[in-house]
Amino acid sequence: MNFASDNAGPMHPSVLDAIVKANAGYEMPYGNDTIMPRVRDLIRTKFEAPEATVYLVATGTAANALALATYTNPWETIFAHRVAHVEEDECGSPEFYTNGAKLTLVEGAGAKMDPDALRQAIKGTGQKDVHSVQRGPVTITQATEVGTIYTLEEIARLTAIAKEYGLKTHLDGARFANACAALGCSAAEMTWKAGIDMVSFGGTKNGCAGVEAVIFFEPEKAWEFELRRKRGAHLFSKHRYLSAQMEAYLTGNLWLELGAKANANCARLVEGLETVAGAVIPDTPEANMVFAHLPRAAHRRAMDAGAQYYLFPSDAPLDGPDGELIRCRMVCDWSKSAAEIDQLTALLRG
Amino acid sequence: MNFASDNAGPMHPSVLDAIVKANAGYEMPYGNDTIMPRVRDLIRTKFEAPEATVYLVATGTAANALALATYTNPWETIFAHRVAHVEEDECGSPEFYTNGAKLTLVEGAGAKMDPDALRQAIKGTGQKDVHSVQRGPVTITQATEVGTIYTLEEIARLTAIAKEYGLKTHLDGARFANACAALGCSAAEMTWKAGIDMVSFGGTKNGCAGVEAVIFFEPEKAWEFELRRKRGAHLFSKHRYLSAQMEAYLTGNLWLELGAKANANCARLVEGLETVAGAVIPDTPEANMVFAHLPRAAHRRAMDAGAQYYLFPSDAPLDGPDGELIRCRMVCDWSKSAAEIDQLTALLRG
Amino acid sequence: MNFASDNAGPMHPSVLDAIVKANAGYEMPYGNDTIMPRVRDLIRTKFEAPEATVYLVATGTAANALALATYTNPWETIFAHRVAHVEEDECGSPEFYTNGAKLTLVEGAGAKMDPDALRQAIKGTGQKDVHSVQRGPVTITQATEVGTIYTLEEIARLTAIAKEYGLKTHLDGARFANACAALGCSAAEMTWKAGIDMVSFGGTKNGCAGVEAVIFFEPEKAWEFELRRKRGAHLFSKHRYLSAQMEAYLTGNLWLELGAKANANCARLVEGLETVAGAVIPDTPEANMVFAHLPRAAHRRAMDAGAQYYLFPSDAPLDGPDGELIRCRMVCDWSKSAAEIDQLTALLRG
Amino acid sequence: MNFASDNAGPMHPSVLDAIVKANAGYEMPYGNDTIMPRVRDLIRTKFEAPEATVYLVATGTAANALALATYTNPWETIFAHRVAHVEEDECGSPEFYTNGAKLTLVEGAGAKMDPDALRQAIKGTGQKDVHSVQRGPVTITQATEVGTIYTLEEIARLTAIAKEYGLKTHLDGARFANACAALGCSAAEMTWKAGIDMVSFGGTKNGCAGVEAVIFFEPEKAWEFELRRKRGAHLFSKHRYLSAQMEAYLTGNLWLELGAKANANCARLVEGLETVAGAVIPDTPEANMVFAHLPRAAHRRAMDAGAQYYLFPSDAPLDGPDGELIRCRMVCDWSKSAAEIDQLTALLRG
Repeated sequence: MNFASDNAGPMHPSVLDAIVKANAGYEMPYGNDTIMPRVRDLIRTKFEAPEATVYLVATGTAANALALATYTNPWETIFAHRVAHVEEDECGSPEFYTNGAKLTLVEGAGAKMDPDALRQAIKGTGQKDVHSVQRGPVTITQATEVGTIYTLEEIARLTAIAKEYGLKTHLDGARFANACAALGCSAAEMTWKAGIDMVSFGGTKNGCAGVEAVIFFEPEKAWEFELRRKRGAHLFSKHRYLSAQMEAYLTGNLWLELGAKANANCARLVEGLETVAGAVIPDTPEANMVFAHLPRAAHRRAMDAGAQYYLFPSDAPLDGPDGELIRCRMVCDWSKSAAEIDQLTALLRG
Repeated sequence: MNFASDNAGPMHPSVLDAIVKANAGYEMPYGNDTIMPRVRDLIRTKFEAPEATVYLVATGTAANALALATYTNPWETIFAHRVAHVEEDECGSPEFYTNGAKLTLVEGAGAKMDPDALRQAIKGTGQKDVHSVQRGPVTITQATEVGTIYTLEEIARLTAIAKEYGLKTHLDGARFANACAALGCSAAEMTWKAGIDMVSFGGTKNGCAGVEAVIFFEPEKAWEFELRRKRGAHLFSKHRYLSAQMEAYLTGNLWLELGAKANANCARLVEGLETVAGAVIPDTPEANMVFAHLPRAAHRRAMDAGAQYYLFPSDAPLDGPDGELIRCRMVCDWSKSAAEIDQLTALLRG
Repeated sequence: MNFASDNAGPMHPSVLDAIVKANAGYEMPYGNDTIMPRVRDLIRTKFEAPEATVYLVATGTAANALALATYTNPWETIFAHRVAHVEEDECGSPEFYTNGAKLTLVEGAGAKMDPDALRQAIKGTGQKDVHSVQRGPVTITQATEVGTIYTLEEIARLTAIAKEYGLKTHLDGARFANACAALGCSAAEMTWKAGIDMVSFGGTKNGCAGVEAVIFFEPEKAWEFELRRKRGAHLFSKHRYLSAQMEAYLTGNLWLELGAKANANCARLVEGLETVAGAVIPDTPEANMVFAHLPRAAHRRAMDAGAQYYLFPSDAPLDGPDGELIRCRMVCDWSKSAAEIDQLTALLRG
Repeated sequence: MNFASDNAGPMHPSVLDAIVKANAGYEMPYGNDTIMPRVRDLIRTKFEAPEATVYLVATGTAANALALATYTNPWETIFAHRVAHVEEDECGSPEFYTNGAKLTLVEGAGAKMDPDALRQAIKGTGQKDVHSVQRGPVTITQATEVGTIYTLEEIARLTAIAKEYGLKTHLDGARFANACAALGCSAAEMTWKAGIDMVSFGGTKNGCAGVEAVIFFEPEKAWEFELRRKRGAHLFSKHRYLSAQMEAYLTGNLWLELGAKANANCARLVEGLETVAGAVIPDTPEANMVFAHLPRAAHRRAMDAGAQYYLFPSDAPLDGPDGELIRCRMVCDWSKSAAEIDQLTALLRG
């Protein structure tokens, strides 16, 4: 019963099979394997972007940091939501890869940037000329860190503001598939058609072992990206194993099915949580993650039985008044079974 | 017939099996999986170093750059052989991870640092006080980039010089197993017993998909390394797949067997090359790599039949006088069959 | 009538004389001049800190960035007020010198950090272990960017919070003298006796041409600072001219007199501004800088007559309704005459 | 009797006078002073380059590091002579300002790059594609670190090689005036007419207190340079004092006269040294610096009388066999008097 994160789950069997299959014989290293051209074609087709530049790395942080660094000078600032992964969960990786750029934090409910707040943040930057850091790209997380999802209109509104000021736009899509499945839109609609210039397209949290694609819709900085990736030590010699994962992930829309499955698992979980006496779920989850306030006794029962998920604060004591509500985060990946979900909610109900 | 590099070959079946097996159920992310403690114990046992700090990353460049950066201030210089991987093949990754340290290049025949040259290089550094970069660690590649191997005495002599000046020592062991097998020594003898402070212990080139261990024999900077690894985007969420590879690699001395196998394959290849009319092999290979001068016609026959390996210069024309010697590099990994090797040498012989 | 900044004024005659005097004959370069030991002694005496480490640089930004970088790892964050000079006016110099550390912005009225806000900011940092940036030093600006002054108790309260979490503390004293004069306290009382570990002690804005002292009350990182200063290209070969300025500045408490004079000039200016019909001065200035809201017509009269100071926004149009209030900043240095101040206020009164 | 360095001497009276004169009244800060446009014009006129971009900084290291960083990506390498100031005397400042670029060291007699060695160094760089660091600018020191001077033809030959490979060229002119005076050429002839793209034009060593101009003959990266200068903390608020020095230095060809005077002083010194019994001067000095081998007893006499200059090694013992030759470096600036020079040679003669 591990609901701690979608990175705690296994590979999907098709992804694993692809690795097994890729293990035959020799392949040229460093991205020159025979699988990678197919991956490139698949992504270009899915994204309806025949000119797109496509690269693979193994971690979401690498995808974000390398993509952003390619379009951020050291004396610029990246506009990001206050709770964005790049701000809170990467130990300063964007600052490292950009050689010291800033992040300007933008507020907004539900971990989604407020357009007015973004505009104010951009307007407030660089006003002191050479004394100020300058304006850099805008990065949007979709689905967000709290499981909400921008509508296509919301994305377009933010990117329009960015473009008004000549700024590039990045989409951190560690949970791209969950968002795309929830919105029922195409990959193109959620990205370049909504004004996005570059994408971190996540596979790791959604059925892969460790692979993310970096996609640039304009190829002008492709070679710079390659140098940055190598210099960052993220160019794999046995690249075939990244390619294989991504090929399986993209074949037959597996990525989208797994995203939809994870969302459905979460919806089932929420349904169950609503039956826990005293439970409060402030926001209806839109993707595969739920934040709930549950009675201490419910947590105690679940955790005593081995359930894993995060409490806030992380050291919230389980011995205390039974009825007191403690906030928690639960995440479902594609691999959860109905039985496992129901087992957890049964435990919580007591 | 791919003899281009030992990173062109597949995973050993045991390593692949370990990945398959690791794919069951949930595992806590970011190095907190249940396999990693066993990996740590295996390495500590093999290296007879019960206090050693052990971390996994996915590329050799990451292992080198992160290990060195942990012990190099930005205003210091790393002493490395002129043809070391950190100098020639990492696109400045050490400079990036150290935030701008230098590399001071040390000469020496056969890609092995000459002790006197090392001493001169160290003595020549930092003499101008605050105006000079300061002395940093010494890094040794074993086996070297040209397939030679330092004897234990040679390593000890270099590390003794380093320690005389209070400098740390690093061993780039991307081909650790090949060297260890060739010397018939223990992992401990080739490292801390010979004065080495930190090791990049390679798995990728020797039967794994992408895993390297960074080993510090003193734990004082463990936490700093963890922060650097995360910040460098090299901390894997689904870390279990790194752990699984490394566990299989270390179990039952698979690593050493594969290293020995690769060396034996190379020896067989050399034997065959010696039968090619006109062939010149200036240095007897000690590990799994051979540099040979072969007649153009021999190369043409082999490459026309699909053989892959590197020529020097890389654009050496195959249409020209038959007898002219062209230098080449051929590398064997563990997976080469006798038949494949013999097929290549037969083609070369014509 | 230049009230734009205290860096628009000239050197005090004593400082200029010191430069003229220092121009005789030879002096060893790079801080080894015969004046520097006297500077060191003067600062140690003024600060009652016989062990303090003292270095000179030529710009306030260099003093701040080098001092902070010496005590901030790249994966840490510096706690600074939202409008601190290090955040708003240095084009990311702290990020550059620290190799990519963050700044965590702390709120507080009057450009002074609120203690509760500081505590919350510190508590909120590093909670995600290796995924978060880690806690670094706290920097306080005294006098602040808006001309307010922390009381000694306020400084002590902030540094106590920092020390509770084991964090170092820095005081950006570009206007150290103005604050010290206003508080009527000693240099020691405003720094180490109030819990400050390192100081940027400004001379440039207060009668010098370009010199700032960096003072560490603990000498442990002295050598590292020297290397960072050299590497940052801030070690002057003809260092004697920095030493000479600072010696004159410290002799006979010139620094304090000039700070007091600048404050008094500002007080006279405020008195005058209060007589301008319609003027609003929300906060009583405590140092040498006033923010006032004045009728457009008043600004027009002054600027037409050649007065220089900053409007907010900087492009506020002077042609518009006469009575509308426009915010402005006026700064006095030591060199302003009563006549010049009165001339400005007469113009504004109309 | 200080012959240690040309940075041990005073400002020329005209430069000091300019500072005194600049100290009247108010000036807008940060390069917006009223003197700077005249400086810009003077440099454009001297260099016959009406479009040139001109900036001032206070140290030669800042000029070099900022100029080079503006045209060097972090993954590139700068081609420099093995004994160049950027390599040996800046504590890694180019590496810091470029965020981790390399320096590739080029050999050549008399501290002058050998054209064939430069070509080989360039050809040997970047051959491994993404695995190698890429080719960056070529930097030439004129006059060199050992007092030799490139002829115009020699400069043109090196820059032609650079341009053949599309590389930018930089001239480190810390001793620009000495070289220009010795060659009897114009500033334009020694720079852009010989293929140089950017210049560090030194004032500090030649009669100023601390000022160097950075000159780009193409203005495309002017704004980037300004941001880098600010971020590096090298933008002076009281910039007028830099402008004033440079204006005086350029007025009436003072810079050239002082360079010629320093060279003549050195020639007189060499003449004197040649009369010291046993003296060996391997290379005839071309600028203002001489390396000589003198008997120990001569050194002892001079130093006992208070003479200052550098011995090699720096800790060469003065008590030992009288006749043994010890190598030394002596540097003359413009301010040396004939009497002082003759006093030194008289002492050495004994």
